[in-house]
Amino acid sequence: MEHIGFVGLGVMGQPMALNLLRAGYALTVYNRTAARAAPLAQAGASVAVSPRAVAAVCRIVCVNVADDAAVEAVLFGAEGLAPALRADDVVIDLGTTSPAATRAHARRLAQQGVNLIDAPVSGGEAGARAGTLSIMAGGPKAAFERVLPLLKVLGSNVVHVGEANGSGQVAKACNQIAVSATLLGVAEALTFARRQGVDAAQVRAALLGGFAYSRILEVHGERMLTRAFAPGFRARLHQKDLGLVLAEAQALGLPLPVTALAAQLMHALNAMGGAEQDSSAVVQVVETLAGLDPRPNSPTNPL
Amino acid sequence: MEHIGFVGLGVMGQPMALNLLRAGYALTVYNRTAARAAPLAQAGASVAVSPRAVAAVCRIVCVNVADDAAVEAVLFGAEGLAPALRADDVVIDLGTTSPAATRAHARRLAQQGVNLIDAPVSGGEAGARAGTLSIMAGGPKAAFERVLPLLKVLGSNVVHVGEANGSGQVAKACNQIAVSATLLGVAEALTFARRQGVDAAQVRAALLGGFAYSRILEVHGERMLTRAFAPGFRARLHQKDLGLVLAEAQALGLPLPVTALAAQLMHALNAMGGAEQDSSAVVQVVETLAGLDPRPNSPTNPL
Amino acid sequence: MEHIGFVGLGVMGQPMALNLLRAGYALTVYNRTAARAAPLAQAGASVAVSPRAVAAVCRIVCVNVADDAAVEAVLFGAEGLAPALRADDVVIDLGTTSPAATRAHARRLAQQGVNLIDAPVSGGEAGARAGTLSIMAGGPKAAFERVLPLLKVLGSNVVHVGEANGSGQVAKACNQIAVSATLLGVAEALTFARRQGVDAAQVRAALLGGFAYSRILEVHGERMLTRAFAPGFRARLHQKDLGLVLAEAQALGLPLPVTALAAQLMHALNAMGGAEQDSSAVVQVVETLAGLDPRPNSPTNPL
Amino acid sequence: MEHIGFVGLGVMGQPMALNLLRAGYALTVYNRTAARAAPLAQAGASVAVSPRAVAAVCRIVCVNVADDAAVEAVLFGAEGLAPALRADDVVIDLGTTSPAATRAHARRLAQQGVNLIDAPVSGGEAGARAGTLSIMAGGPKAAFERVLPLLKVLGSNVVHVGEANGSGQVAKACNQIAVSATLLGVAEALTFARRQGVDAAQVRAALLGGFAYSRILEVHGERMLTRAFAPGFRARLHQKDLGLVLAEAQALGLPLPVTALAAQLMHALNAMGGAEQDSSAVVQVVETLAGLDPRPNSPTNPL
Repeated sequence: MEHIGFVGLGVMGQPMALNLLRAGYALTVYNRTAARAAPLAQAGASVAVSPRAVAAVCRIVCVNVADDAAVEAVLFGAEGLAPALRADDVVIDLGTTSPAATRAHARRLAQQGVNLIDAPVSGGEAGARAGTLSIMAGGPKAAFERVLPLLKVLGSNVVHVGEANGSGQVAKACNQIAVSATLLGVAEALTFARRQGVDAAQVRAALLGGFAYSRILEVHGERMLTRAFAPGFRARLHQKDLGLVLAEAQALGLPLPVTALAAQLMHALNAMGGAEQDSSAVVQVVETLAGLDPRPNSPTNPL
Repeated sequence: MEHIGFVGLGVMGQPMALNLLRAGYALTVYNRTAARAAPLAQAGASVAVSPRAVAAVCRIVCVNVADDAAVEAVLFGAEGLAPALRADDVVIDLGTTSPAATRAHARRLAQQGVNLIDAPVSGGEAGARAGTLSIMAGGPKAAFERVLPLLKVLGSNVVHVGEANGSGQVAKACNQIAVSATLLGVAEALTFARRQGVDAAQVRAALLGGFAYSRILEVHGERMLTRAFAPGFRARLHQKDLGLVLAEAQALGLPLPVTALAAQLMHALNAMGGAEQDSSAVVQVVETLAGLDPRPNSPTNPL
Repeated sequence: MEHIGFVGLGVMGQPMALNLLRAGYALTVYNRTAARAAPLAQAGASVAVSPRAVAAVCRIVCVNVADDAAVEAVLFGAEGLAPALRADDVVIDLGTTSPAATRAHARRLAQQGVNLIDAPVSGGEAGARAGTLSIMAGGPKAAFERVLPLLKVLGSNVVHVGEANGSGQVAKACNQIAVSATLLGVAEALTFARRQGVDAAQVRAALLGGFAYSRILEVHGERMLTRAFAPGFRARLHQKDLGLVLAEAQALGLPLPVTALAAQLMHALNAMGGAEQDSSAVVQVVETLAGLDPRPNSPTNPL
Repeated sequence: MEHIGFVGLGVMGQPMALNLLRAGYALTVYNRTAARAAPLAQAGASVAVSPRAVAAVCRIVCVNVADDAAVEAVLFGAEGLAPALRADDVVIDLGTTSPAATRAHARRLAQQGVNLIDAPVSGGEAGARAGTLSIMAGGPKAAFERVLPLLKVLGSNVVHVGEANGSGQVAKACNQIAVSATLLGVAEALTFARRQGVDAAQVRAALLGGFAYSRILEVHGERMLTRAFAPGFRARLHQKDLGLVLAEAQALGLPLPVTALAAQLMHALNAMGGAEQDSSAVVQVVETLAGLDPRPNSPTNPL
């Protein structure tokens, strides 16, 4: 099997890289904080000293780092991938970044004949570990098909959204828009039931059978009821993603009223102390506004 | 099989009553506008001259009328059901009304030993015809179980939400809260894709495989793409239901920020001429705000 | 001077009635809870046993009661004004009620030749005591001019908005719409400054000199800075007024997105324990969402 | 009088520089598009070939350019001011930029002993021409006092918000927050009146006398009534400013729900074709949502 590079071994990157190893790929990895490469080394991966060193030995390199600036540094920084990449190599950007930055990176790489596939994922840490992520890819079809076997190791739902780079990032943004509104809708629905004195678990059960069915109601609605807010998908990352969406919409002059409001409530979750909880904990913001106690054993009316 | 009464043969009530007939129930019906009873008469139902005349011959009576005031008139008005009802009779209110009014009606009926089951439905005209509605019921368990076989003719998902009357209406309100937010989330997501020049159909396909999956994305997202806005669930009814939810929340002093905003956009759909379209046409409001043409062959910038 | 009737001696009504007495009007008053009439009796007013008894002796009757239902009871209830009113009498409704109910009351009174002037006020308890209220009047011009001297005792800014009854209530609704949005804008601005570590008092001072100047920034902005939330205009009344506005907008199918959102935050103030505070205390809701402590000596992060 | 530099002669900068000339200051100016310097040259200013050439002859330099990146280029770019500035010189940034960028610029200038005063303005083109701007300044007190006489030529309301650089920008952000919410409140109020069939001009007159009074109601409310949307303050600049505010709030994790919603409606105004109109034209967005015709002679229902 092909020799794959993997740069960025964070909460998502580490289990994804492990899955590639387990699937039989030879792997050379790099992470800025070297300690996070250790589990990969133990599992059989080579550890490189820089992104450039990864590109020296791999014709397909996955990148999974925090934001636009980090992607740019990995690609074009002092010890970046670019000078070691060759024509027809493929870089797969698995992180969630802005469509505009993705397009700019793709243009620069194209000048040396290198293909970029933007392939942001959805499904959280659990999905990364289980290899059941949803992957939304943008970029040249031929390059996409070349790396499709690899993407199918990482995710169970891989869609090529469009030939244009950034299409994957746009789909991911759409995903966050739809997910955020649904999450808040479920949070408000369960809070309405609680405030009415009706069993919210029964309400959720009734709603699962009709048009209100959503994966969010099923999975995150359950978390809201059981208060199992261990991530999951951390609120601070959800907030970051919504920031990307709204910055993009600002640049386009595109109104997204419900998304903008959902983002404010996600800000509130972070500001009120929930940054490391699963973003379904936003129900606690709705409850606080309703004068309901979001915690056991605390005063109901905070003012 | 038991002899069932049915009062209110509107867009939803008529197909529901027909399904009861087809399932073998004897049926006596009443509708204020008599013409709407004709298809039922042709199919074998008896037609009564008043709600009271229905109650004279049926120990279980379904009611499906427009709003709180209409339910009150059917129950307690000049030719209303109440004086002809006997102890242990069951009235099933299949309409969407306020939890508070439902509780008041239940208390009055209880004084004469009559049980009320509030059993609002979700699923639209198609669901009413197909007998695949989702039904959320509140009221005494024994009475619920007595009418459960009948409810299973009308819907494929019947849940007893709670012993307290109004529990079904609360669940229906929760349903509308969750559905409205999700609908707007899908509308904003597809508009974001369109404004970015990315194929919205591909984006929807990608999202269906992940956490953004919802029945709304599947069914109403498809309507948004194909512009198939023939109802479905009429925007004016969706608006009415959200009005009930927000009036209830106002009475409770309960903040529902996302629902309140979604309701304003649903108002806009109605005000802009879409009252008789399926409420998924709210995507056109989002598009109008985005300066995108919601119709073929019309100017892009309306200002 | 003319003999004036006054029904409803609540927080606003009592000081208004006292101002009429001080201005030299003969006054006959009624209040459901009789004790509240005592200060008026001491100041020289006659106390009647019912609204009807007031109308028996006064050709102009002021009404200042809580809501639509209370106005209807005072006008047309068992011991209501109507049967004792004569042609050309004037009823002045000083309370904030719905335009639709006002129109209905006016039509009923007109059948007996009685004029209704809807004349809701703005300016709070302080304005009621000082006689500096803003009064927005609707109804027939001739009747308005007949009662204008009296209204000028109660307020320093009296405007005849339109001949049609309900015009005053519409203007009052517009007042609450504009005030609510401005109040939230000021609250968010001062919270932004605080969160940035910039002296909010200096920011307010800078803003007072430019386009951001508003009476709300001047008066309520000061309250937000000094935490002087003693009413003022109680949050629960502000919430009630916004409920009227939004119910009217719902009936019209009129979207008011910013007002609807402001109303949710006002709900939150009430739900979180601030119902009896001045509505400028809504800044505490914004602060709570921002993870800032709205009270001295309490934990910053409530979650 | 002192010799002043002025870089950036746009819609706002040109009249501000002319006012300095008229007040008797010697002026050396620079603009990237040289033609815009011509009116200044005719009025007696020297025209420099670069920002650096300005700094070579002036100890106080005003900068008024479009955004963070442009300020950075003027200060530290190839032909930027910095290398020609000396200890104790003062740079006045009159544009609206982010507090964070301002702080970064101030730190870099401080390394060479140069003071930055961030002094964004409010009041629009009319205020710039009339010298009646509101100016919100941040930075060292001594430097502020040194340039105060000059600032008083440009504006009639000059406030030193704080010693910390960025304080002026924070105040300007607060200004835009308060102004935006008030603008939308006025737009919704006047639309409510129009939809109710009540004379919106009379409603505005009534509101001017009470707590709803704001400069926005007075000035922009008038524009909404007369449809005099010639700028004024262009919607695209208002949109840009709100983008800065929300990006800052995103970075802080600060929820600003009403501001975020107002920003979406301002996006809509831009997207619907109103980018070059005064931002009070946002009333047309509210009217469009209400199904009211925002233009003469066009169809009421755009869907």
